[in-house]
Amino acid sequence: MNNPETMALRCAACGRTHALDELAWRCADCHGVLDLTGFTPVMPKAADLATRRPGLWRYAEALPIAEPPGITMGEGMTPLVTAPGQPGVGLKIDYLMPTGSFKDRGAVMLAALAARLGVTRLMADSSGNAGTSVAAYAARAGIACDVYVPESTSAGKVAQLRAYGATVHQIPGTREDTAHAAARAADEPGVFYASHVYHPFFLHGTKTYVLELWEQLEGRLPDTLVLPVGNGTLVLGAYLGCAELLDQGLIDRLPRIVAVQASGCAPLATAFADGRPEPADITTHGTVAEGIAIAAPARGRQILAAVRATGGIIVTVTDEQVHAAHAALARSGLYVEPTSAVCWAAIRADLVDTTPRPDGLPAVVAPLCGSGLKSKPPA
Amino acid sequence: MNNPETMALRCAACGRTHALDELAWRCADCHGVLDLTGFTPVMPKAADLATRRPGLWRYAEALPIAEPPGITMGEGMTPLVTAPGQPGVGLKIDYLMPTGSFKDRGAVMLAALAARLGVTRLMADSSGNAGTSVAAYAARAGIACDVYVPESTSAGKVAQLRAYGATVHQIPGTREDTAHAAARAADEPGVFYASHVYHPFFLHGTKTYVLELWEQLEGRLPDTLVLPVGNGTLVLGAYLGCAELLDQGLIDRLPRIVAVQASGCAPLATAFADGRPEPADITTHGTVAEGIAIAAPARGRQILAAVRATGGIIVTVTDEQVHAAHAALARSGLYVEPTSAVCWAAIRADLVDTTPRPDGLPAVVAPLCGSGLKSKPPA
Repeated sequence: MNNPETMALRCAACGRTHALDELAWRCADCHGVLDLTGFTPVMPKAADLATRRPGLWRYAEALPIAEPPGITMGEGMTPLVTAPGQPGVGLKIDYLMPTGSFKDRGAVMLAALAARLGVTRLMADSSGNAGTSVAAYAARAGIACDVYVPESTSAGKVAQLRAYGATVHQIPGTREDTAHAAARAADEPGVFYASHVYHPFFLHGTKTYVLELWEQLEGRLPDTLVLPVGNGTLVLGAYLGCAELLDQGLIDRLPRIVAVQASGCAPLATAFADGRPEPADITTHGTVAEGIAIAAPARGRQILAAVRATGGIIVTVTDEQVHAAHAALARSGLYVEPTSAVCWAAIRADLVDTTPRPDGLPAVVAPLCGSGLKSKPPA
Repeated sequence: MNNPETMALRCAACGRTHALDELAWRCADCHGVLDLTGFTPVMPKAADLATRRPGLWRYAEALPIAEPPGITMGEGMTPLVTAPGQPGVGLKIDYLMPTGSFKDRGAVMLAALAARLGVTRLMADSSGNAGTSVAAYAARAGIACDVYVPESTSAGKVAQLRAYGATVHQIPGTREDTAHAAARAADEPGVFYASHVYHPFFLHGTKTYVLELWEQLEGRLPDTLVLPVGNGTLVLGAYLGCAELLDQGLIDRLPRIVAVQASGCAPLATAFADGRPEPADITTHGTVAEGIAIAAPARGRQILAAVRATGGIIVTVTDEQVHAAHAALARSGLYVEPTSAVCWAAIRADLVDTTPRPDGLPAVVAPLCGSGLKSKPPA
């Protein structure tokens, strides 16, 4: 249990396996995305949970790595509260995290693995919540960190990354140029690419969103999980968590996943509507929900399959709806990033069935993923 | 238990009592500060705590009011983590709060009381963490909120208050002019002044900092609590919590409180050094630790008495020390407001005995009170 030495990374496309300490970030043969194998997660018993701290490390037997000393900053077990004016809806305040976003669930797993593998330097390539989170946990773990960002990244974000001691590489040109520079760096021998998109440990961190929810609802899950989707780090983590609970007989069916994209950048919603297995080839028109503005999600095929496996759907909301939902949440005391308002926008637009359940459990739960302190206030 | 109808507010100076629904914010006779009477807090038993959610409402029997429906945003039970490079020191991540600061502990109590009293409008007079917190909880509770701030308040802070739906009154002139305008408004009949300084319910919220710590350390407290001090909302709350635990026989002595001021504005440290019972009459020179830059703390006499009762001290740190501590915390992954770094500055300056205890408990615990996302990154 919890022994990375017995695990491997297996290519989702061709099946080739890679030892964890090879530090592969994608399949060495076919460049496919990698999943974790050789690991049997077990949800701890209620009696064991009763004596553990509230954070996500309480699910030790369900995680691929044991908690290393001195790395936690208290991530996980975020509150589940009632939604304003929607008795059937619960909101999980997933921005109550050390760096202000749900990404800490995954970043702490990557930092723990990097520490376990004896890595002394790691890299990331996001200037958003994921990059911030990786930089923070690298700092906490005492591991040097390089972050590749487009030259256009705001001075504030660069300053925050540098405050964590990260070396920031500002790459001229397009976002693709940054991605290529990061990929080149990631391919160098001995580099640990702490990627929220590629590394499956990240998803074994984000799955704790569902494990917590299951515990908070006393061994049940809501009928529907509404989740934002861009690169799918939360959708895939949530699906993984649900599938593990189902495998263990702890739930009797998968909750339906309603994944939400911004209409200005919706390769997954388009593919879903067209019944296709791969993300659509789209031109992005930009969106205020920049955290999910991903034109070509590397795990797109997996995301589409996961949503379909739950009987779910992928919907879109307009920037106008996001702005209105963002402002409405703040007027109810819940101050989030615009990206975090997409689920609330979908609920307000009646894209989700929120009929209250007779047993009083929330029929629907949505996360508030990122703190509003990271962005400008809603108008 | 938990029945505000049997409680009263008693003047700390002359002893006059005021019913809670009189909405007095200071003594009607002598303008002294008010404390809560007619309430016997009881720490819940471990068996009861085992079945309750992690937030601060788990201490129901120790709080002056029952949790109202729909007001919580998941405040409380913040993580206790190890300090970088200081094995004897624990850091309580008290910025993992709905609005990003420990002030939520007190603001949620005021919102709960306002809702219980049927108040439809409340007011506050801080543009900092306390004002933000009160505005957020008023929004969550569906209570209208007026906030009085100096005209010089930054556009960003005003925008955030307005995002919560608060009516912001920008008062020309000095900070004292704002204080006078707020006092005039607070004296109007029927106005609920949700003051973090004057209302004792706020301190019964901040005392949960200590109740949590006691539970997290399995029924013990550290030898020393290092706490920032300006208006004393955390020092007085912590002292209250410790005194309640001592009264109930749950600890055998008060931990020593080491309160930290910024050297640029240190009326309490000056009075402490001089052995005087009232804050010194000082001229403020300004400080980067703006959250504790309080020249004339209304509860100064109580703060001085509380620190002395614990055998504690009041120390100062310079802005240079605060800057260095702030940067060092960020380089260890802990991203806080400058004000939140004053305790770490005091620890780094060896103003606190941090010798590790033989039993492995932290000898010293300090809070990280405010999220760094609220401020500029450290240089």
